[in-house]
Amino acid sequence: MNYKMVAHTVGIILRIEAILMLLPALVAALYGESTVMIFLVTACVTMLASMVLTYLRPENRTIFAKEGFLIVAVSWIALSLFGALPFYFSGEVDGFVNCFFETVSGFTTTGSSILTAVEPLSKGLLFWRGFTHWIGGMGVLVFALAILPMAEGRSMHILRAEVPGPTVGKLVPKMRTTAMILYGIYLFLTAVEVVFLLCGGMNLYDSIVHSFATAGTGGFSVKNASIGAYQSPYFEWVIGVFMLLFGINFNLFYLVLIGKLKDAFKSEELRWYLGIVAVSALAITANIAHLFEHVGDALRAAFFNVSSVITTTGFVTENYELWPQFSKIILVLLMVVGACAGSTGGGIKVSRFVILLKSIKQEVRKLTHPRAVKHIKFEGHLVDHNTVESVGLFFCAYSVIFLASILLVSLNGFDFATTTTSVLTCIGNVGPGLGMVGPVGNFSEFSVLSKLVLCFDMLAGRLEVFPMIILFSPFVWKKK
Amino acid sequence: MNYKMVAHTVGIILRIEAILMLLPALVAALYGESTVMIFLVTACVTMLASMVLTYLRPENRTIFAKEGFLIVAVSWIALSLFGALPFYFSGEVDGFVNCFFETVSGFTTTGSSILTAVEPLSKGLLFWRGFTHWIGGMGVLVFALAILPMAEGRSMHILRAEVPGPTVGKLVPKMRTTAMILYGIYLFLTAVEVVFLLCGGMNLYDSIVHSFATAGTGGFSVKNASIGAYQSPYFEWVIGVFMLLFGINFNLFYLVLIGKLKDAFKSEELRWYLGIVAVSALAITANIAHLFEHVGDALRAAFFNVSSVITTTGFVTENYELWPQFSKIILVLLMVVGACAGSTGGGIKVSRFVILLKSIKQEVRKLTHPRAVKHIKFEGHLVDHNTVESVGLFFCAYSVIFLASILLVSLNGFDFATTTTSVLTCIGNVGPGLGMVGPVGNFSEFSVLSKLVLCFDMLAGRLEVFPMIILFSPFVWKKK
Repeated sequence: MNYKMVAHTVGIILRIEAILMLLPALVAALYGESTVMIFLVTACVTMLASMVLTYLRPENRTIFAKEGFLIVAVSWIALSLFGALPFYFSGEVDGFVNCFFETVSGFTTTGSSILTAVEPLSKGLLFWRGFTHWIGGMGVLVFALAILPMAEGRSMHILRAEVPGPTVGKLVPKMRTTAMILYGIYLFLTAVEVVFLLCGGMNLYDSIVHSFATAGTGGFSVKNASIGAYQSPYFEWVIGVFMLLFGINFNLFYLVLIGKLKDAFKSEELRWYLGIVAVSALAITANIAHLFEHVGDALRAAFFNVSSVITTTGFVTENYELWPQFSKIILVLLMVVGACAGSTGGGIKVSRFVILLKSIKQEVRKLTHPRAVKHIKFEGHLVDHNTVESVGLFFCAYSVIFLASILLVSLNGFDFATTTTSVLTCIGNVGPGLGMVGPVGNFSEFSVLSKLVLCFDMLAGRLEVFPMIILFSPFVWKKK
Repeated sequence: MNYKMVAHTVGIILRIEAILMLLPALVAALYGESTVMIFLVTACVTMLASMVLTYLRPENRTIFAKEGFLIVAVSWIALSLFGALPFYFSGEVDGFVNCFFETVSGFTTTGSSILTAVEPLSKGLLFWRGFTHWIGGMGVLVFALAILPMAEGRSMHILRAEVPGPTVGKLVPKMRTTAMILYGIYLFLTAVEVVFLLCGGMNLYDSIVHSFATAGTGGFSVKNASIGAYQSPYFEWVIGVFMLLFGINFNLFYLVLIGKLKDAFKSEELRWYLGIVAVSALAITANIAHLFEHVGDALRAAFFNVSSVITTTGFVTENYELWPQFSKIILVLLMVVGACAGSTGGGIKVSRFVILLKSIKQEVRKLTHPRAVKHIKFEGHLVDHNTVESVGLFFCAYSVIFLASILLVSLNGFDFATTTTSVLTCIGNVGPGLGMVGPVGNFSEFSVLSKLVLCFDMLAGRLEVFPMIILFSPFVWKKK
């Protein structure tokens, strides 16, 4: 194990975080808040840690898959530990575990909160909270990839664990260029959303923070009532559509960028994704229509919440806890499915589900026609056995972590819906669940153990499960 | 598709059912009940249906895997349709869907009931209800295998779908002899349990019906309060241990029978199974100790309910709904795991879980040491990729059916715990769940649609998922 190289890389990532902290410091300064000093101190502390970690230049710069996975897991934890410091130092959030939970929730773009109210927080902190979503969204490591001077082969190990979904399409041969293109699209879409929100009359600060949270599919808002606070159909439609956009595989935006619009719309995953959204929104509309005066309002509420949950953003406008059970179960199922691979969204990913469904169908064919074995196709390509096995095992590992987590979280003694959906929403990086963690609830009542378990789940969900399992596998550490 | 051969085989199975109905008829006669006529009429109707189906002798007696799976699925449905008639004709159970649900629950050894009280039922019907567990337990088709004159290759297709678990160990070369041996062990263990219950002072009728329900890991009782009605620690221990025995792979009993005791105890699955039972029982004991006067009582309650749920029997002594959430979640997780492969129990099976856990560990190894790929071992044998893929896909298919079913059942508008655990307990062939379907609840309030969905789930769970998927796959029917 090349520990020095792991430490060195984590150090470089912390340096980036230290620099990024200057932005909330600037915001705090603009609002004349005292938290400006807290951000500057934290930035210095983080920079100091970075300098310690990068002080020793590793003589051997080779890293293998093992180191790649560990770098990913360790750096997300390190980012969260240092990112939690502004909350802690400010005294606006009680206890370090709460600060850590909030920051993990931010960087993993989950959006689950231990805060009973967000509005009392200072502007600088609320900005930082939303900014963690934006940083986390595209993966700070994709960002790092564009800056770290690394050779092709090595950086791929990091990206494999980092970019969500089973397939990482290499857009262009150079990894660094890929990262830059993805990052450009991300920045551009975020800016467009800010403009749209400004046009609707939202102030600049709220527009930027909400756009950060939309882009990262995170869901932290600056309002206690989230997007519902604005009581504005315009914002609901705009944010509803932008959430949906950020749940799409970014490779498709690249295809649009280079004029291959047709190819983008041919994407099988995109069609499934949009199909699921349409069917779910219509089913919920029919189910909740009686709760609204106009069916149009029901449709908007259904679309916004479906978009919010399938993209694993977690913004809310309505207390869907009050909806019929059928609508709630649809939302719970969308939490499981999640967004498209290669997007900023979480969950198991639409592409994995499609591959699993096709594999099950294929298994039925194999059982009934043993001699007529054909491979399955996805996005026009044959899917080999290794991929099917990997996707199947991913689903199993995800389920095992889910089941083990609800066992630990059940020690709180909360009701069944709260216990199970708190884990589901955290591992899926969604944000809200049902019961106590519903749209108007929060995670403040959970025990320290539960909060740490849920932090693990958020990280596991965000990092595609395996880096976190590897981090906690003793046998990985034992062997040289 | 060889429809004639499917019809012919189903016909033979119905003939067996008709003959088996004479036993409850005898019981009804002994108690001087009028239901004796109902059983005789139903037996005649069933025999008539059998004669119609077997009238045409198929000229081509070849069956392939496809026909095998369909025979299994269709015959379980046919058995349940005719088996429901005594309940319907007697008028003691309202509506045919309820009668069908109760019978499916019986034959699939689930034990979920739509009855709000069982004690008002006549002795003959209660006997038939328990007897369906016993028939279903070992699979009426294993039974049929010992009687139907079929060649090796063909009958294997049926057995593959029928005997629970991923591996069917051929004990002896001749399939018919295998079935006879398994059946002998089953009969013997049932008889031993009857003797034990008689020794404790239970009357003969109750002893036999409860032994039927234990042997089939079903859980239908003759008392409203199930085993709790007897208020007897002796019965709780006896039934608790027998449930555990019937959850063990029957091949191991055969090994004991031929003196290979050591080999039996070497079974990896057995060790996991007993380990899970011990850990769960101790964890629950610690969690519920404060609810009991003596810790011994807590241990007994914990052991009985753990044994009842992991073996998917579903007998109850306590209203575990009143236990802390941690204990309830343990029971829910045991519902998912289920008993050993090759036992009469349901669920996903311990062996599948062990293979999945090992595969996940192997995947971690592969990711961290790409060149050091080794195969995993289970029960001393290498597990090949096809098996891992099959087990993974089984788990995925099971999950997909679970998720789709809770969506449909949620239309009832019941609470989250009731909605999810009603499906979980039915597909796992357990019996009780949480909420309205808890230990003191029942399925009477569910809609007709929900009851039919749950019938599908019970059959899917019992028949290892794929036969039911195949039955409802249009493309299987289309192709010749």
